[in-house]
Amino acid sequence: MVYSETLFPVRYYETDQMGIVHHSNYIRYFECARNNMMREFGYPIEMCEEDGVTIPIVTVECHYKHPAKMGDDLRVVAMIDEAPLAKLRIRQAVYNQDNVLCVEGQVVLGFLNKATGRPTRCPEKLLVAIESHLNDR
Amino acid sequence: MVYSETLFPVRYYETDQMGIVHHSNYIRYFECARNNMMREFGYPIEMCEEDGVTIPIVTVECHYKHPAKMGDDLRVVAMIDEAPLAKLRIRQAVYNQDNVLCVEGQVVLGFLNKATGRPTRCPEKLLVAIESHLNDR
Amino acid sequence: MVYSETLFPVRYYETDQMGIVHHSNYIRYFECARNNMMREFGYPIEMCEEDGVTIPIVTVECHYKHPAKMGDDLRVVAMIDEAPLAKLRIRQAVYNQDNVLCVEGQVVLGFLNKATGRPTRCPEKLLVAIESHLNDR
Amino acid sequence: MVYSETLFPVRYYETDQMGIVHHSNYIRYFECARNNMMREFGYPIEMCEEDGVTIPIVTVECHYKHPAKMGDDLRVVAMIDEAPLAKLRIRQAVYNQDNVLCVEGQVVLGFLNKATGRPTRCPEKLLVAIESHLNDR
Repeated sequence: MVYSETLFPVRYYETDQMGIVHHSNYIRYFECARNNMMREFGYPIEMCEEDGVTIPIVTVECHYKHPAKMGDDLRVVAMIDEAPLAKLRIRQAVYNQDNVLCVEGQVVLGFLNKATGRPTRCPEKLLVAIESHLNDR
Repeated sequence: MVYSETLFPVRYYETDQMGIVHHSNYIRYFECARNNMMREFGYPIEMCEEDGVTIPIVTVECHYKHPAKMGDDLRVVAMIDEAPLAKLRIRQAVYNQDNVLCVEGQVVLGFLNKATGRPTRCPEKLLVAIESHLNDR
Repeated sequence: MVYSETLFPVRYYETDQMGIVHHSNYIRYFECARNNMMREFGYPIEMCEEDGVTIPIVTVECHYKHPAKMGDDLRVVAMIDEAPLAKLRIRQAVYNQDNVLCVEGQVVLGFLNKATGRPTRCPEKLLVAIESHLNDR
Repeated sequence: MVYSETLFPVRYYETDQMGIVHHSNYIRYFECARNNMMREFGYPIEMCEEDGVTIPIVTVECHYKHPAKMGDDLRVVAMIDEAPLAKLRIRQAVYNQDNVLCVEGQVVLGFLNKATGRPTRCPEKLLVAIESHLNDR
């Protein structure tokens, strides 16, 4: 399994008038954690886009278990179980500083040729990074 | 079926460097459309919260079909098929000005007693509004 | 004077745990109101960018007078007092449904050639629209 | 002078279709850097609010010098030159990983009694922290 985690101290503007992190922000944390994983792979998203491939989201699913609050230090996880073909599936989760599961979900990503706007394959560099990590662990 | 729709011209800050509306914003449009529906019911969310009940999200699911762009006038739909018990399920969709389906999804909402933080029933006023609309159409 | 106004019902995700609209959102309302003004001019920002000119912000200044809340219907104003040369200055204000001034501010915008990234003049179509409105009133 | 800095890797959702960080986000970085400073003081904002004092913004001013991009690691600075009376003035700046000044600005904050909604004095704990740092350096 590919595993990556990133820390996110809650930001004040992410709270809403219920006094908790607004639910849309976890979708954003998910993305940040994925992009941080790509950076750890040595192939950050901006490099991928310069190489002509964008990675739009196809599906997101999110289950809210426990509200995060201002002052929380969130740990956001991205996990890949299998090498992507046309689509990349990533499992994600958010834990607080007490290891309480706040949110879990999964996303499916596609790959688009930036020039044509048409579906394309997972870029070689990303595929190699994922496969090497899948074999490692 | 309860049906409500709201218009959202795309806002510049909602776009990202792919040149399309960032995917997290549809989750926000969904919420705005739901809150607008409650306003149409004559029972806006802020009144509900003053009455001591918050409506946190339990699950969101979102399928991205077609990217929205700056200049688009989006129509965001909220639909309820059955009266809520402990949970309220809402189907949602986003169409652009050419009636192209951009995103579809569904959310499940819970009801919390604001004072105790414990689950509670759907507020009577909201239930009555939903049921009266369910019978109407 | 060029004058344009746009209505913004407060969105739930724009509130923060103080129970008011988070201050950063007024900066976003300002932008939306400016872009709506350009749309009224018949020259929306996306058309301007297609014509090769982006309009980045140079300075923003914002004075917070009265907090906006969920349920408020905000009226956001953009006013231009003189035709732009290298820079465009716009005065802005936000009023609530009771005509209370919530925020006032001003922004200065520049014009960049999208291809070269260098400063350029105000696009002719925008200049003509501004000048014709300046003379009208 | 009180000096505090915080690192912010740019997040994808913070970019816009100009391919740069949307200008409203610097206002948010400013706030995060201020709140991080309070945390360093041992008196985080959520503790201050629990003590009954909120710290709404009165004025913000922001000068945009150089655009930040996806992949940038921003360093956001908060500086206090004098102990607050009714208002707290903070100078702020954003630098990228090459030490290029991206944005500079300043904010003025007020103090409100949460219960009454009326202006109040700077909380003692915050004042002591600021004064002790002012004397240190």
